[in-house]
Amino acid sequence: MRWRLPEHIEDILPAEATRIEVLRRRLLDLFASFGYLLVMPPMLEYLESLLTGTGHDLDLRTFKLVDQLSGRMMGVRADITPQVARIDAHLLNRQGVTRLCYAGSVLHTRPEGVSATREPLQIGAEVYGHAGIESDQEIQRLLCRALAVAGVRGARIDMGHVDVFRSIVQAGRVRAGLEADLFEALQKKDLPSLRTSVRGLGKSTREALLLLPELYGGREVLELARRRLPAIPALRRALVALRALADACSLPTSFDLAELRGYHYHNGVVFDAYCEGAGGSGSALIARGGRYDAAGRAFGRPRPATGFSIYLRALTGVAPVAAAREAILAPCLTGSRSRDAKLAARVESLRRAGETVIEDLPGHARHHGELGCTRKLVKRRGIWVVQPFGRGK
Amino acid sequence: MRWRLPEHIEDILPAEATRIEVLRRRLLDLFASFGYLLVMPPMLEYLESLLTGTGHDLDLRTFKLVDQLSGRMMGVRADITPQVARIDAHLLNRQGVTRLCYAGSVLHTRPEGVSATREPLQIGAEVYGHAGIESDQEIQRLLCRALAVAGVRGARIDMGHVDVFRSIVQAGRVRAGLEADLFEALQKKDLPSLRTSVRGLGKSTREALLLLPELYGGREVLELARRRLPAIPALRRALVALRALADACSLPTSFDLAELRGYHYHNGVVFDAYCEGAGGSGSALIARGGRYDAAGRAFGRPRPATGFSIYLRALTGVAPVAAAREAILAPCLTGSRSRDAKLAARVESLRRAGETVIEDLPGHARHHGELGCTRKLVKRRGIWVVQPFGRGK
Repeated sequence: MRWRLPEHIEDILPAEATRIEVLRRRLLDLFASFGYLLVMPPMLEYLESLLTGTGHDLDLRTFKLVDQLSGRMMGVRADITPQVARIDAHLLNRQGVTRLCYAGSVLHTRPEGVSATREPLQIGAEVYGHAGIESDQEIQRLLCRALAVAGVRGARIDMGHVDVFRSIVQAGRVRAGLEADLFEALQKKDLPSLRTSVRGLGKSTREALLLLPELYGGREVLELARRRLPAIPALRRALVALRALADACSLPTSFDLAELRGYHYHNGVVFDAYCEGAGGSGSALIARGGRYDAAGRAFGRPRPATGFSIYLRALTGVAPVAAAREAILAPCLTGSRSRDAKLAARVESLRRAGETVIEDLPGHARHHGELGCTRKLVKRRGIWVVQPFGRGK
Repeated sequence: MRWRLPEHIEDILPAEATRIEVLRRRLLDLFASFGYLLVMPPMLEYLESLLTGTGHDLDLRTFKLVDQLSGRMMGVRADITPQVARIDAHLLNRQGVTRLCYAGSVLHTRPEGVSATREPLQIGAEVYGHAGIESDQEIQRLLCRALAVAGVRGARIDMGHVDVFRSIVQAGRVRAGLEADLFEALQKKDLPSLRTSVRGLGKSTREALLLLPELYGGREVLELARRRLPAIPALRRALVALRALADACSLPTSFDLAELRGYHYHNGVVFDAYCEGAGGSGSALIARGGRYDAAGRAFGRPRPATGFSIYLRALTGVAPVAAAREAILAPCLTGSRSRDAKLAARVESLRRAGETVIEDLPGHARHHGELGCTRKLVKRRGIWVVQPFGRGK
């Protein structure tokens, strides 16, 4: 079948497309009301600007193309965040705080999971130029508002901070090769490997690293960490930041101090938003974010940065959107018989009032059922009125 | 410079992005009010489904990629219309009339002109399943309404019909090789070649073909064509269709009976919408459309089809969009000192009322000018009020 689509690539049909459009607008309007300016970076860039300062994972996920105009390699964006950092660093060139938002498709060479799409729709917001916790808090409040205006119920936020692990290995003077082993063991929650790797380390570092996988749960985790992890200043600051972030968050929050996502990319708080899928399909990741102050460095202008990206199709899967009002069927406006200025004016005013009015094209009366109209425009004593189907002529 | 973009690829910065977003919404809302259902086809498809039934031009404009999951060739869409025809033919599978609309990016390997982008934004509407002139007229009225709601002034429509040339060469039994020569000569308006090519043809065919390049102008062209072109039934029907199309069009119309755009693709009326560019930059093509009943045939289900595509970035260049209201600066909501439930409630209600309220992050007072705020929230006798910058505290 010539029209079959590649695996993990989908057409979005009217019911879902309309829900996506409704949520897209609500979120962009919310971001605008907070002062976030919309930008639209291109789908294509030279590979070196697209991948500069990003990780190996993104490289593997990026489709590569030859530019026929320059002979150079280009990539199709697999993430919008680095593009927005480039725009902040070089195009807008502000000295102070810059708030930007975006919405668009990205393409992945391979899906991120068995049921993942290779064309996620990303919609997100970023604050550049502010290093304090207040901008992380603003981003957190904005994410909570975004999930609220989307109508999502039962969302929760998982928080972590990359300085927890980093400060422990730095204080323990762990050499780079061993750090990579510890990183891998923690990321895989592989406790036997973790126990093996910590053997040669000092007591305080060893105990701290072995404790990390247990530091998962509610606010009590922060208190436990404060009491039982070593009093390293950067670690203390990370715990204070996590508490402040949770204060700004109006959704149920949990902490995972062994969370290492974006370790090579982020340098502060990191968070994921989850929501229970419809029909017990398990928990869906709907947004992801954090602080990544290195963002602009690759472009020659390091700027503090914090933000989030919502996966719009995943969000649409868990957010209820009210169905639109059903349509009204009108006689054909351009047929020679039904040419009627009053009819045209009535149709126009109904449409302006937010109604959908479908014109009946000649020869299709037996397919009316497909159009989804529940009402029709009929002439009663010279006046065009809307009435339900099945009543009178 | 690592962050330079490829030629004919651009970032869209906030001012233009906001205008595009405003126009995108107005047009999609208009299409919805006429009963057009939104679909979102993917950026990527297998090459054979993407290019089936389309011309060599589209093939050359399409970026090709290898699918790592199947090893097959994929293409990045260079046009959305064939994708929407595929959706009508196979996914929706309606017997009657189907109205679909879409909005999205396409990518081109090479720009279509010296100032063209390689990432046009297409927004369009299509009617499937209706072969009569009434659906062409509906599409024409919808295009005129679209340009009106976009606020475009001075737009005009150029109309043609591929059956004019086709019926003359068919009636004259012109062999295929010569037809191709005539086609090329007419398309290039190359009169010497045209005169050479028509030499061996019968008088009526020869005279008709030599007349075509002169049949350009207002409604008088249709009358002239009726009198002076041979009375071939298909040609007469084409002239009647053009008159009916012009009747449905509320914009200034001109006719070009030598217009051959989409000769191998279209099979009925074709039209282009132009608008004078800002600052005398010449005439910009802002939309293009017509009837192409072969659309679904490539997918095994031929369905009549008629529609148009608007070039949203070209439209944004000629459509005035009112600037948004300027923003209000509010004290930081999450700083420890200014934590104030009344302030938070006031900010929330201003945002709900459509205002942009930017929170002042600590340490950035000297960059306030960059934020574009003309008003600020200040506390007066315990109440938060909005006042212009530069008054009082």
